[in-house]
Amino acid sequence: MSILVVGSVALDYLETPHGIMKNALGGSATFVSISASYLSQPVRFVGIVGGDFPEEHIGYFQSRGIDLEGLVRVPEGKTFSWGGRYHEDMNNRDTLYTELGVFETFSPEIPDIWKASEFIVLGNIHPILQLHVLDQISSPRYIICDTMNLWIDISREDLLRTIARVDALILNDQEAKMLTGLSNVIAAGKHILTLGPEHVVIKKGEHGALLMSRDRIFSAPAFPLDAIKDPTGAGDSFAGGFAGWLSRTNDTSFENLKRAVICGSTMASFCVEQFSIEGLRDLSAEAIAERYLAFHDLAAFELPEKL
Amino acid sequence: MSILVVGSVALDYLETPHGIMKNALGGSATFVSISASYLSQPVRFVGIVGGDFPEEHIGYFQSRGIDLEGLVRVPEGKTFSWGGRYHEDMNNRDTLYTELGVFETFSPEIPDIWKASEFIVLGNIHPILQLHVLDQISSPRYIICDTMNLWIDISREDLLRTIARVDALILNDQEAKMLTGLSNVIAAGKHILTLGPEHVVIKKGEHGALLMSRDRIFSAPAFPLDAIKDPTGAGDSFAGGFAGWLSRTNDTSFENLKRAVICGSTMASFCVEQFSIEGLRDLSAEAIAERYLAFHDLAAFELPEKL
Repeated sequence: MSILVVGSVALDYLETPHGIMKNALGGSATFVSISASYLSQPVRFVGIVGGDFPEEHIGYFQSRGIDLEGLVRVPEGKTFSWGGRYHEDMNNRDTLYTELGVFETFSPEIPDIWKASEFIVLGNIHPILQLHVLDQISSPRYIICDTMNLWIDISREDLLRTIARVDALILNDQEAKMLTGLSNVIAAGKHILTLGPEHVVIKKGEHGALLMSRDRIFSAPAFPLDAIKDPTGAGDSFAGGFAGWLSRTNDTSFENLKRAVICGSTMASFCVEQFSIEGLRDLSAEAIAERYLAFHDLAAFELPEKL
Repeated sequence: MSILVVGSVALDYLETPHGIMKNALGGSATFVSISASYLSQPVRFVGIVGGDFPEEHIGYFQSRGIDLEGLVRVPEGKTFSWGGRYHEDMNNRDTLYTELGVFETFSPEIPDIWKASEFIVLGNIHPILQLHVLDQISSPRYIICDTMNLWIDISREDLLRTIARVDALILNDQEAKMLTGLSNVIAAGKHILTLGPEHVVIKKGEHGALLMSRDRIFSAPAFPLDAIKDPTGAGDSFAGGFAGWLSRTNDTSFENLKRAVICGSTMASFCVEQFSIEGLRDLSAEAIAERYLAFHDLAAFELPEKL
């Protein structure tokens, strides 16, 4: 099955307790598409970059089999850039700056031959842009929407309109609480399921993730890493692994969604081990399978013969 | 196998967003012993109460088969009392007061016939008292120590001496970070394992628990509750369920410790559904088995045929 990814492409400035990286390849569409490309093909990429965007990144996307037909290049413009500083515990970060550049006028146009794509990933961008994508696609099999606190804060109504039209919403626990006004994450997840989506995935960082449908809950562990280099893109890598598994198997049953959550968690765990996309740059199928199995070992326990 | 429980007994004042309860039966030994009593017998109780301690509570302990040979009653004294107020999100609380009462002069004396008890639970009390218990017991099969931020703060050296002599340390993620000075919980757990214990259990509240040995990690989910009435005693109930399962099976292999963690999580999930001990007061074996199975469903996922 095909995956259509729409989102941002960025050249970021990153500060973590482990170091600094300038002009780091980033953006939601970047992480989503690279992550998904390890699980399923074709991956179709819709985004925008400026004249400063290095050719080597273009070459890397292509080497991953990512179709860049939907990538707009504006030679006279500057690529979107975000600067962020992570705190010691890596769970909190400060935005140092946001330079929209060419992203300011971005309107995602889906090439005609891509409008019938099966799996749609609305990466973390303004919900108005996400809605614009939904207006262009025809008969999608499954739509996944990622979002963030900024849009809940400044564009709640548009976000609610987007959420009402997607199959799965992915967000973190703080965002779920913020969106619903509920302090209990389970209650927040249940509430989100009344807003339209059939599934909600609540990411909890070092605590794993929850997958919820109206009548079932799955709790996925986080991979136990004793050092995290750079959390940037972890959520996008999760969304990419999640979508990639669903597209690969063309199965959106709850049992298979669980595996998709583990695939997403697997890809996110590779992402945070290095700065920028480096943790995802060159993974073998064996390394991915090995880590997926490690997730299984981490969470599996046998039922006793008698309780 | 036998379980020896040493800890506090309290009449607490509790304020949560769901209500207020005065003279609520509480204390670490209370929750540990009641919880353990559902899984294994005999449970031997060492603690102290004042003349104000209601006879009905004594009767309840006895009805649960808890042996009170080690309970000291001081008719002229007052039972230990803690007053606490939980915040809206239930993850934080303020201590309103602490009245030590008879606990001020408590020195846990283990009845001679109990000194050969197999499973020892050092409930959350001053580490000096925990050490005093360890000095009295002979050839224990497995020693479990629970602690809290207060002792890490004011009595670190004594706590480290205690930790060096136990098989399993149970503490929450904030405490693990505080004890080790490490901001990553996995790194903190690994560090604790260098301090003496063979196993460490890191409780993460609504995020579940981690069990770690030198070469293995198990991640247990939290039971998804959309309303928590009163978190008081959750950690002690966890320790009771954990010890109870180990005592019942007399098996301290890592595979069986995983099941003990799930038993502990099961008992903690019942505890927080009601104020004080009410959630644990009258559980059937069927209800416990059903919830244990629910934990299994919550975390289980199948491996795909091909990765």
